[in-house]
Amino acid sequence: MPETPEQFDVIVLGAGPVGENVVDRAQRGGLSVAVVERELAGGECSYWACVPSKALLRSVDLAGEVSRVPGLTAGPIDADAVLGWRDYMVSGYDDSGQVGWIDSTGATFVRGTGRLAGPRTVEVSTPGGGTRTLRAEHAVVVATGSVPVIPPVPGLAEAEPWTNREVTGMKRVPDRLVVIGGGVVACEMAQAVRGLGASEVTMLVRGGGLLGRVEPFAGEMVAESLRERGVTILMGRNAERVERPEPGGEVTVHLDDGTTLVADEILVAAGRRATTADIGLETIGLDGSGPIRVDDSMRATAVPEGWLYAVGDANGRALLTHMGKYQARLCGDVIAARARGKQDDLPSMRDRADALGAPQVIFTDPQVCAVGRTEAQARADGINVRAVEYEIGNVSGAYLLGDGYKGRAKAVVDQDRRVLVGVTFVGPGTAELLHAATIAVTAGVTLDDLWHAVPSFPTVSEVWLRLLEAYGL
Amino acid sequence: MPETPEQFDVIVLGAGPVGENVVDRAQRGGLSVAVVERELAGGECSYWACVPSKALLRSVDLAGEVSRVPGLTAGPIDADAVLGWRDYMVSGYDDSGQVGWIDSTGATFVRGTGRLAGPRTVEVSTPGGGTRTLRAEHAVVVATGSVPVIPPVPGLAEAEPWTNREVTGMKRVPDRLVVIGGGVVACEMAQAVRGLGASEVTMLVRGGGLLGRVEPFAGEMVAESLRERGVTILMGRNAERVERPEPGGEVTVHLDDGTTLVADEILVAAGRRATTADIGLETIGLDGSGPIRVDDSMRATAVPEGWLYAVGDANGRALLTHMGKYQARLCGDVIAARARGKQDDLPSMRDRADALGAPQVIFTDPQVCAVGRTEAQARADGINVRAVEYEIGNVSGAYLLGDGYKGRAKAVVDQDRRVLVGVTFVGPGTAELLHAATIAVTAGVTLDDLWHAVPSFPTVSEVWLRLLEAYGL
Repeated sequence: MPETPEQFDVIVLGAGPVGENVVDRAQRGGLSVAVVERELAGGECSYWACVPSKALLRSVDLAGEVSRVPGLTAGPIDADAVLGWRDYMVSGYDDSGQVGWIDSTGATFVRGTGRLAGPRTVEVSTPGGGTRTLRAEHAVVVATGSVPVIPPVPGLAEAEPWTNREVTGMKRVPDRLVVIGGGVVACEMAQAVRGLGASEVTMLVRGGGLLGRVEPFAGEMVAESLRERGVTILMGRNAERVERPEPGGEVTVHLDDGTTLVADEILVAAGRRATTADIGLETIGLDGSGPIRVDDSMRATAVPEGWLYAVGDANGRALLTHMGKYQARLCGDVIAARARGKQDDLPSMRDRADALGAPQVIFTDPQVCAVGRTEAQARADGINVRAVEYEIGNVSGAYLLGDGYKGRAKAVVDQDRRVLVGVTFVGPGTAELLHAATIAVTAGVTLDDLWHAVPSFPTVSEVWLRLLEAYGL
Repeated sequence: MPETPEQFDVIVLGAGPVGENVVDRAQRGGLSVAVVERELAGGECSYWACVPSKALLRSVDLAGEVSRVPGLTAGPIDADAVLGWRDYMVSGYDDSGQVGWIDSTGATFVRGTGRLAGPRTVEVSTPGGGTRTLRAEHAVVVATGSVPVIPPVPGLAEAEPWTNREVTGMKRVPDRLVVIGGGVVACEMAQAVRGLGASEVTMLVRGGGLLGRVEPFAGEMVAESLRERGVTILMGRNAERVERPEPGGEVTVHLDDGTTLVADEILVAAGRRATTADIGLETIGLDGSGPIRVDDSMRATAVPEGWLYAVGDANGRALLTHMGKYQARLCGDVIAARARGKQDDLPSMRDRADALGAPQVIFTDPQVCAVGRTEAQARADGINVRAVEYEIGNVSGAYLLGDGYKGRAKAVVDQDRRVLVGVTFVGPGTAELLHAATIAVTAGVTLDDLWHAVPSFPTVSEVWLRLLEAYGL
């Protein structure tokens, strides 16, 4: 006899930061919410990605800054202390704090693996082996995130490679690491592992450069810096076969040029795919082979009656925590408005930011910060652009940060509208410069207004003035 | 027999960064320019203020950051190396680089003391004892900066106190320092001198708090930090008499509570006044007793025919290098436009920023960054404000910077226009957060637009999201 389903206004699949934000906004909107999580509330970001990776990078990054400042020297990094701090930052991989926060909102936290079982219905396999059936009056929101892609290299999967999870969670620093990939995770973790004491870190990069989604000079500057720190980068080199005869033992990687690499661990950082394959999408007529397509209110476009939403990595718009959270806020608001029959098309209830080009900070040294379009993207989109660049090291605020400061800024201007459509900063300590650009790009602040926004002296932000001058103001 | 005056379109009195910017823009506008400097081209900022003070503070600031990061330790600061770097940053007090830059613009650099000698006329006493007479076809621009005020405390002037010049130029770090004042120079230099090895630093602060022009919590947080670092702050305590029997010997300061302080040096950081007293203003009917009053194009309001301009500290609008440079850019442009009979009231040719509240970064630890009005100022100005605050240490991007991060942000919102009229950040490493606020305040970006400007995770800039949420978005 089927049990009576538990009723909620909204069911959220996934209690990562994105799901949590849906919970928060929908609850505030007066709805009852259940949120289902098969792993840890707080999600990938809190335990296996952004947070631990930045905890691992901070000492390495700061040691780099110290090395440029006359009169100050840093001792060798105590890797054990850093790993301990990482453990503290991830709360020892215990989510009771996050679950407590969810409880405090009034939402119902359901531990288990949730799958759609027809329209508005979610079946949860609980850790005890039971099943709970939940039914949503108004909406089901997929916030299941993404998983790393393991390339089909013979022997790779069998070698039990590290992904972002194992590398950010490492219990000791491997002496020799091979990294497959040249994106954000690959660059950040190559730097962290080398900086924390690995003697050999080798990156295998498919294409001709690192960090393919940002301006090309960014990847070049990061490559130069990684090489200066002793990381080996093999561009255009691929793994053909991987061997690891003993679990946990040495890994041998055979490359396409006939050479081999031997390492203690191998990290795969070759992209991610939306976690949509095993969440029951087939029960509502979707195939789950990729991200769930949504409109600007995060509502799935292919589902009748509009009760399904997808936010964060699961919709494929931007694989960035902060963008997922942004989508989640507007999604929670819009669901509440629709449930209550209120106006559901306020400006705050539509995704405007993703189409402009999501902001991102990459925590390498130099840091890479970008928002909007690259020059190439803007041209491809048919915008009448002119781009200007400036060496950040020529700004007083930068060279006062340390001897031999190197950095570069680029602004991509829509000449017709006289607004910025893309800004990139590459340099040490530039992470906090980005939000100014994010505001300027998002709000369409004109160059003529930016001219009156005077950067304080001596900050690195004075590069704003130089960019405007370079444009001709 | 009077010699024939040398003719220029524009004469600039003072080749600090402000004067240099007038030169640059007026030259670019096609005018011939002479610039007169009695000390060093590059001015106070480059040799005796912003630049050397930040060179002295950087290692101290960074050592503070290191102290909060598990796994990293910094050795003791090598004060001699820091002083050597300071010397390098001020080019050994040699201005040939700056003079070379002025020459490269095509302007005429005149070394000597310039004074007005009637309308459009400047007489320069040259170092060799000669006199040159310059005559301006279009404009004379006063960019003479400011000098420290020495309070009329008996014995103080005779004790040859340090000002910003001597402290930023110190050849060795005094073991005991008394600081008179509680403003920016006082706080920054107390921190630098203590951080570079002084055993006793005592601040005498007239009022009840530090940093009187920013939100009160900023001064409180800086006071707490200075005290934690071992600086003694005596609030509401004044020097009544100073004795220094031997030049360069011990200084004894008698306080108004009957106690005395003994120190190796005494630093006066009690404000500045515009350098307008000895520049011949009386020859054109002005009295030179204070800043020169100007309109928003930097033109002196009390001078017939409108040929006199004043920029930077000399006009008293804001005693900040970057604001002076901003005024200088528009001043150079407006003079060129008027000289050529072109449109002289473009938006770029009027000072909009000073009236909104100049941005400023104070390089203490915590850094203090503010733009626009404080809440109290905004209320006094009759704006319908609501202010929100947020503890920056609760933002992931902040606590990932170090254990025990403490900081606070405050936003002052004009509720009628839904725009920010004031923003303050206090916390380590917040300097580069300010420009986002400067753009938002200056351009009047609405809260509803700011909502779509997503701060990148995990940066400290996520405090922007928290402030907007605190306001109710």
